[in-house]
Amino acid sequence: MIQKRKILFVTGARSEYDIMQPVLEQLNNCNDIELKLIVTGAHLSETFGKTVKNIENDGYEIADRIYNLVSSEDKVGRVVGIGTQITGLAHAFAREQPDIVVVVGDREEAITVSMTAAYLSIPVAHLAGGDIANDGNIDNAVRYATSKFAHIHFTFLEQHAQVLRLLGEDDFRIFNTGNPALDKFVHCPVIPKNEIAPLKVLKTGNEPYLVLIQHPIITEATDAGKQIVETLEAVVDLGIKCFINYPNSDAGNFAIIEMISKYAGEYPEIFYLFKNLDRVNYINLLRNAAVLIGNSSSGILEAPSIGLPVVNIGSRQRERFSAGNVIYVDYNRVEIATAIRESIYNPVYRATVKGIVNPYGDGNSAKKISDVLRSISINDKLIYKNITYKV
Amino acid sequence: MIQKRKILFVTGARSEYDIMQPVLEQLNNCNDIELKLIVTGAHLSETFGKTVKNIENDGYEIADRIYNLVSSEDKVGRVVGIGTQITGLAHAFAREQPDIVVVVGDREEAITVSMTAAYLSIPVAHLAGGDIANDGNIDNAVRYATSKFAHIHFTFLEQHAQVLRLLGEDDFRIFNTGNPALDKFVHCPVIPKNEIAPLKVLKTGNEPYLVLIQHPIITEATDAGKQIVETLEAVVDLGIKCFINYPNSDAGNFAIIEMISKYAGEYPEIFYLFKNLDRVNYINLLRNAAVLIGNSSSGILEAPSIGLPVVNIGSRQRERFSAGNVIYVDYNRVEIATAIRESIYNPVYRATVKGIVNPYGDGNSAKKISDVLRSISINDKLIYKNITYKV
Amino acid sequence: MIQKRKILFVTGARSEYDIMQPVLEQLNNCNDIELKLIVTGAHLSETFGKTVKNIENDGYEIADRIYNLVSSEDKVGRVVGIGTQITGLAHAFAREQPDIVVVVGDREEAITVSMTAAYLSIPVAHLAGGDIANDGNIDNAVRYATSKFAHIHFTFLEQHAQVLRLLGEDDFRIFNTGNPALDKFVHCPVIPKNEIAPLKVLKTGNEPYLVLIQHPIITEATDAGKQIVETLEAVVDLGIKCFINYPNSDAGNFAIIEMISKYAGEYPEIFYLFKNLDRVNYINLLRNAAVLIGNSSSGILEAPSIGLPVVNIGSRQRERFSAGNVIYVDYNRVEIATAIRESIYNPVYRATVKGIVNPYGDGNSAKKISDVLRSISINDKLIYKNITYKV
Amino acid sequence: MIQKRKILFVTGARSEYDIMQPVLEQLNNCNDIELKLIVTGAHLSETFGKTVKNIENDGYEIADRIYNLVSSEDKVGRVVGIGTQITGLAHAFAREQPDIVVVVGDREEAITVSMTAAYLSIPVAHLAGGDIANDGNIDNAVRYATSKFAHIHFTFLEQHAQVLRLLGEDDFRIFNTGNPALDKFVHCPVIPKNEIAPLKVLKTGNEPYLVLIQHPIITEATDAGKQIVETLEAVVDLGIKCFINYPNSDAGNFAIIEMISKYAGEYPEIFYLFKNLDRVNYINLLRNAAVLIGNSSSGILEAPSIGLPVVNIGSRQRERFSAGNVIYVDYNRVEIATAIRESIYNPVYRATVKGIVNPYGDGNSAKKISDVLRSISINDKLIYKNITYKV
Repeated sequence: MIQKRKILFVTGARSEYDIMQPVLEQLNNCNDIELKLIVTGAHLSETFGKTVKNIENDGYEIADRIYNLVSSEDKVGRVVGIGTQITGLAHAFAREQPDIVVVVGDREEAITVSMTAAYLSIPVAHLAGGDIANDGNIDNAVRYATSKFAHIHFTFLEQHAQVLRLLGEDDFRIFNTGNPALDKFVHCPVIPKNEIAPLKVLKTGNEPYLVLIQHPIITEATDAGKQIVETLEAVVDLGIKCFINYPNSDAGNFAIIEMISKYAGEYPEIFYLFKNLDRVNYINLLRNAAVLIGNSSSGILEAPSIGLPVVNIGSRQRERFSAGNVIYVDYNRVEIATAIRESIYNPVYRATVKGIVNPYGDGNSAKKISDVLRSISINDKLIYKNITYKV
Repeated sequence: MIQKRKILFVTGARSEYDIMQPVLEQLNNCNDIELKLIVTGAHLSETFGKTVKNIENDGYEIADRIYNLVSSEDKVGRVVGIGTQITGLAHAFAREQPDIVVVVGDREEAITVSMTAAYLSIPVAHLAGGDIANDGNIDNAVRYATSKFAHIHFTFLEQHAQVLRLLGEDDFRIFNTGNPALDKFVHCPVIPKNEIAPLKVLKTGNEPYLVLIQHPIITEATDAGKQIVETLEAVVDLGIKCFINYPNSDAGNFAIIEMISKYAGEYPEIFYLFKNLDRVNYINLLRNAAVLIGNSSSGILEAPSIGLPVVNIGSRQRERFSAGNVIYVDYNRVEIATAIRESIYNPVYRATVKGIVNPYGDGNSAKKISDVLRSISINDKLIYKNITYKV
Repeated sequence: MIQKRKILFVTGARSEYDIMQPVLEQLNNCNDIELKLIVTGAHLSETFGKTVKNIENDGYEIADRIYNLVSSEDKVGRVVGIGTQITGLAHAFAREQPDIVVVVGDREEAITVSMTAAYLSIPVAHLAGGDIANDGNIDNAVRYATSKFAHIHFTFLEQHAQVLRLLGEDDFRIFNTGNPALDKFVHCPVIPKNEIAPLKVLKTGNEPYLVLIQHPIITEATDAGKQIVETLEAVVDLGIKCFINYPNSDAGNFAIIEMISKYAGEYPEIFYLFKNLDRVNYINLLRNAAVLIGNSSSGILEAPSIGLPVVNIGSRQRERFSAGNVIYVDYNRVEIATAIRESIYNPVYRATVKGIVNPYGDGNSAKKISDVLRSISINDKLIYKNITYKV
Repeated sequence: MIQKRKILFVTGARSEYDIMQPVLEQLNNCNDIELKLIVTGAHLSETFGKTVKNIENDGYEIADRIYNLVSSEDKVGRVVGIGTQITGLAHAFAREQPDIVVVVGDREEAITVSMTAAYLSIPVAHLAGGDIANDGNIDNAVRYATSKFAHIHFTFLEQHAQVLRLLGEDDFRIFNTGNPALDKFVHCPVIPKNEIAPLKVLKTGNEPYLVLIQHPIITEATDAGKQIVETLEAVVDLGIKCFINYPNSDAGNFAIIEMISKYAGEYPEIFYLFKNLDRVNYINLLRNAAVLIGNSSSGILEAPSIGLPVVNIGSRQRERFSAGNVIYVDYNRVEIATAIRESIYNPVYRATVKGIVNPYGDGNSAKKISDVLRSISINDKLIYKNITYKV
């Protein structure tokens, strides 16, 4: 009997899970793989939709649930949660003895998982290394530090692979596969517009509408409320219907939730809040949207695949490579309103955006990643990273 | 009244403290500086000499003692301790609100302190970045990851500064000051040989003797016992007196302690163990030694200042830049014995080693570092790290 | 110079702080006392009103803020938070070296503080020992266990002092002082009814109104939503205005918050939510209320001082000694409505309730407690508890 | 198919494991039981013999290893370890969902396990409740607090069952089974004296010898070294061979280890140290010993079964019920020596001790305990503890 390779994914937030899920789907069907997940962080909090339920519904085996998200907007609370997470991960990895652990992105899970596994000499595969978020954000430091601990890198853009090479990572560790979240996005079933759940509120089939996702920025946490107000006021000005997704769990999110709740109360004909819209309805909501606004990575990564114009507000995502479908504006209601108008009413710009080829992936990334995870040799060369700086 | 700049050092082991102590000495005399320490890890353990007492004796203000070192050789214990340390540091930093935190080296304290401070937007100064330890050791990953979180880098060698530039760190953050541990080493008072405490056991003033410091390597922890036996057997073969310092707290150290205790019992005329020899006696012990053997960083960093030949055993330190006073050998009693003989009895080699200029510092590093810590502008440019990769 | 006695209070929730605050007020004016607080748990969470701000505003010195409340309704999250709290308290007690630590009640802070201090041989004073909450609740186990660790007991009822004697506690440790929360309650300034903030919504000065506070019960957490609906429906039926306070942070509270928000949205003329009403307005709101409903301890402890009828719903408080002003009902809208009607419209019952003497205190408890804390001898007899069981 | 009852034992030290092991043995052979262990604390530390290996060798399934023992003699380190242990237990219990958890004694595991399980509404069975150790020791507070959290009590003495009734515990929860550690003790195979491993050093078969086990007392930790010296000096005075077992992991143990090592070095003909003597040799060592000295519970609990005289030194065990085989003395070399002489050379006393019936058990305790664990009804009556104080 052949020993199955045991692969352990760790996820702490829906944004991470959405990226890894297509890879899970691939691996779950491989009889040479034993697949488990560790679920932690925001997944276990009612405040963030208790999205561990999605994972349970998807049917993957959960090896452990690590409760660590501290209920506080103060940044110290987040770091306390990091300490608890590391302790939990250490015990879980020791118990499970995985052949590879997999983690995604630049949240605390990226650094806690990669550091813990590296100390235990367990190979770490990291998705989304080499990416660049906005200036000065802790996310960049976390992502680069994660890359220094990780043994296998799956990048989402050729430029990201280049960054990893500059960071001194060996070529044999780097696989530019594109973003697996795009797989589902690209292959997502089409729902006729009049059957998309949230769109029941539209008066006519042709009424243009916006989708708004604006996350807090840790380093600007105290301004989060003021920032979202600029966006909301711009939309009120335009008088266009706007579907708002809840922000993530970073510090500052309470202020955003408070403001979007307030505006939704005051302008029930304009703003529609949703917390956990299912993915199929969400993608079809985007497919028919006039513009995506806010600062979601979705605007950079996924919107190009469906030719959707994006207005990106503030510093988040500003450093990310855009395929050409994004207008960048400041936290300023006038700038925001102008950019939305351009995105809706300039036919030349809309045509250009429609024709873009998405550099972040072709819809087959999950297969590429799972092939590497199944076949890469696990040996000292992989685990003990050589020093490649020659100075 | 001028607001004093508050600088908080964190130390988890004597090796770190020895490097930072000259800087503490400089800053403690500055009336524009409020200086505090957080003491953690091995400092609080009787197993490792409870060296917090040294710090108390030196008279620095201790802001917190964070108890986190788990009593176990299993690597998972170490990571659990990391989690506890982060939780403690988060609370301590929030309480103390330092202007700058300072940390040294590549142990867990380096990464926990730099990550915690970075999440809390507190500037981190890191000593000893850009260095390279042996292949595949977790230390390298920790050190590079720390550099990605840190805001100010004090390097000990020009080559290390170069590595940090390759890692994408801004020039204005990098100061090649040399190693402050050398300051005390260079300026350490000379004790006449016949007054050096451990040397009372020597029969004649001219009897050559060895000093042995051999730390465990985490990735080779299970071999630690076997490895030290090769060294001990080589010394038994040569029949030369050998003073042995206790190893550090990394996994594998129990096996080493067990073996050196055993050999010291069997060969009381050859081996002399010491746990916490005071620094002055230690340095004078080295000054008069024939050869330093093992894998202590001391052989690479300090020995050149006193023209001391070194036999470095095994993979630890192998990647480090040597000034020319080091013979590298494997865990092999014959190789070790041969190299020791060469180091003692080849007059040409001894003369060359005597003439070396130490590239790791000139004895004034602490002053250079404290000047930067006192004067560097603390602003957004320092705290929010730009992305400097251009791909 | 006389060494001041250092007393350290620990509080994790507003309910605890409200009880200890009058004692703090007494001690803060004593020049033989150094007074500090450790603030933890729900105080640091926006979800529960971030009530650390109240403490800051009151001007007490905060020695540490321990972030430990896990954002999850799952009970395991609460226990993880207990672990973090203990670690934080251990470090804080070691740092502060208090002469006495003080804690209140039966929440996790009671057991974490008393256990931590007992391990460190620091005397613990516990307020509210010997009390009895509802059947089977973890609160009772926590309170009794706390009493076994504590060295000084301040009880709120003679019967509670009796329970402690049965538990084997020495007489010299037990002080039946009454509940200091009553001090402020009894001496709270009277606001004319027409100036009480929330009452602006009343149409006439004579309109009777209800106050509702219903906390979740941990052992019935999954029923919390269903339970509150019974109460809300009873109030809708009666059509009487009802002011609702937010529930505490126990598991199940999210469901309650969801339901009260929903009903407040549907019946804006009946339900008025408030999160952090200032205490003076709150007490005056009670003074003029027709009935207090729900399961707040306030109904048992404070309402007798102002002759306020109470309808206590469900198992919480059922085991507590009532002065005669409480009708106990089940989670059943008919029972609840009937009891409210009796409480409002039966003149004999209302007269009886008006005449009650409150067995929980006379308004001078804080002075009694602070006198003991200042004067009790701290010695081995106090710290090392004798075994008093003779079997 | 019948659902097996899942029983989870938690052990943190060899002393606990020795008590529970006969029960494990019973349950492991029952096909209606799923049996698992959580191993934590001193079991995972090389300093205390890494006794997890014994458990692995015994072949029980280990559900989790929780690394929490902090390497420090300072009491704060122990409490930090308690916090980590609780966090680990919470996650483990949530993952394993046991029907019953079982814990033994009065160490930190007793309170952490019982509190964690009680918060999670999992029934806790506690062995050794109602016992009384020395005055003022934290052990008593821990044990009583544990009893207030626990749902099922297995006592080792009728008097202990009485204490639990006084503490308000229901009769149906209390089972006076005796101590299962005695089962193995009583039924332990007899080794001929001349084949008992450590006794090879005896010169003649009739030479009387002592066995010494002296643990530190937390509240007297700083005196531990001085205390053991009195014992060692008394033995030196008598000139009788003495076999010394290592002390447990409580604060103060380092000083004891240091002293016994020193004396063993100085008097190699008198003192023989052993760390992890196998149980069979250990029991046969006792069977042939002249006197057991120190403060081990073994002298109270087990020695009566073999008619062995005991000299109990200091406050530990002083409050425990003795069957009549124990002479209590202070930390005083003269008193100790006198009591040892009486125990060896007074034929009347020796004869009385020989004839004692052990009140701590008849050798069938494990069967009684396992029968209850298999058959007790798990329902609300068990889980939700009623209030039984009538005042």
